[in-house]
Amino acid sequence: MIIVHTIDEVRQAVQAARKAGGRIGLVPTMGALHAGHGSLIEQSVAECDFTVVSIFVNPTQFGPTEDLDKYPRTLDADAAYCEQLGSDLIFAPSADEMYPAEQWTWVMTENITEGLCGANRPGHFRGVTTVCTKLFNIVQADIAYFGQKDAQQAAVIRRMVTDLNMPLEICVCPIVREDDGLAMSSRNRYLSADERKRALCLSQALTHCKEQVVAGKTESAALIAEMMAILEQQSAEIDYVSIVDPDTLEPVEQIAGPVLALVAVTIGKTRLIDNLLIGLNDN
Amino acid sequence: MIIVHTIDEVRQAVQAARKAGGRIGLVPTMGALHAGHGSLIEQSVAECDFTVVSIFVNPTQFGPTEDLDKYPRTLDADAAYCEQLGSDLIFAPSADEMYPAEQWTWVMTENITEGLCGANRPGHFRGVTTVCTKLFNIVQADIAYFGQKDAQQAAVIRRMVTDLNMPLEICVCPIVREDDGLAMSSRNRYLSADERKRALCLSQALTHCKEQVVAGKTESAALIAEMMAILEQQSAEIDYVSIVDPDTLEPVEQIAGPVLALVAVTIGKTRLIDNLLIGLNDN
Repeated sequence: MIIVHTIDEVRQAVQAARKAGGRIGLVPTMGALHAGHGSLIEQSVAECDFTVVSIFVNPTQFGPTEDLDKYPRTLDADAAYCEQLGSDLIFAPSADEMYPAEQWTWVMTENITEGLCGANRPGHFRGVTTVCTKLFNIVQADIAYFGQKDAQQAAVIRRMVTDLNMPLEICVCPIVREDDGLAMSSRNRYLSADERKRALCLSQALTHCKEQVVAGKTESAALIAEMMAILEQQSAEIDYVSIVDPDTLEPVEQIAGPVLALVAVTIGKTRLIDNLLIGLNDN
Repeated sequence: MIIVHTIDEVRQAVQAARKAGGRIGLVPTMGALHAGHGSLIEQSVAECDFTVVSIFVNPTQFGPTEDLDKYPRTLDADAAYCEQLGSDLIFAPSADEMYPAEQWTWVMTENITEGLCGANRPGHFRGVTTVCTKLFNIVQADIAYFGQKDAQQAAVIRRMVTDLNMPLEICVCPIVREDDGLAMSSRNRYLSADERKRALCLSQALTHCKEQVVAGKTESAALIAEMMAILEQQSAEIDYVSIVDPDTLEPVEQIAGPVLALVAVTIGKTRLIDNLLIGLNDN
């Protein structure tokens, strides 16, 4: 495995792999890798001939009051983990390499970015779509892997790729959870022991919602109220609790087909999100 | 030469050409081809192994009061011209092929799009950058050819490609003029015989400006006033007359290096634009 820091180097390496007839996989990350990222890398290694993991804490997707400086940076551990999983190349550019001049061009996806996490993080998804476009253009992979954990991000990226005819496939991989149900997240490391226990309320609320839907409940308002009660019992500060269409992320009032239930809360000072795809035939 | 109407067909043809080791050139047009487009096609044919001409009157770059419906559509003549010049493929998609769903994702370049033509055509450049991104992603050419005639468009596309690390080269080709100096344009066909004569004032104003700069004049305000007088003598309704930096399109007040002089006017009911790159050592 090689680690490169410049666009020229990653392009040269990918071009060589492509000339050898290889299928190129890209796993875009902000580093601080955990088993959730690991599952994306494993799937790319299994399906592709050459797996690129990008590690870049992208400044344009952080708001001025967000945790850009505090965001964990663990390149040595990340590199060891990528190598262990069979990655071929890590692309870890500097902010100057990715944004050498003032960025005047932005990729923006409307509608689907405006609710949920987008409502309280203005500019966040503009940063995500722009940096993903740049990474897609730099690496020119055949397929890119994203986690369902960031459900809105995955839906936005899929819509962007379709709308702009980007020549790659997007694979969205299932959430990886701790044994007790907590969704893996780079931000979990900020939780105290007590907060870590209380954080179980996210997956518990979602599981409760799924059980109720499977049992025949179809009123989103009632289900949302029950999820909020479970979250509030653990003093989680609620950002949103929603039941939406899995593709458009538009709110669903009466459940009549597959839906996506999502929660976003702050526990202590840490913002956590989780979600669950619910089909009517699930059990 | 083949004519295709779907994205799948153009991708298959380009992929076959690329497998044969060919360099792919793209000339994006809205059809109604004239010798200006012809010069782009000729350059692509000379430099590339496979030349794609796209012909698509892109609805998202026309404002609600603009000439989308009236814009000339001359596919048979265009196809004959492309074949004569040695093009390999015409991609002529329908609006539904290019925009099968509501377009939620836009590529937007700030600053450089806000003045000049952008000031009176809100959304125009958003449509241009978005459709060019789509065409670049569909065709995956190595190089795309644009005309200097649409100077702001060329500068915007170059900035977009740089900002988003798009994996292709942009070649901007010189303006092609009629013998008397009128810049070739698909809209010239709207001009009456009298308007056609008066339309010479655009190139005359720009040539006058260049002569004055070469003679040592450096005050843009004075030069702009002189150009406006030449245009007004022909009852041209002035949209803008500007002297700007060739890359950023920011206004230049004191000329101390290469500049771009631009004019946009309406003659009768037809909007015409023209421009001239002026170096201090020109003669």
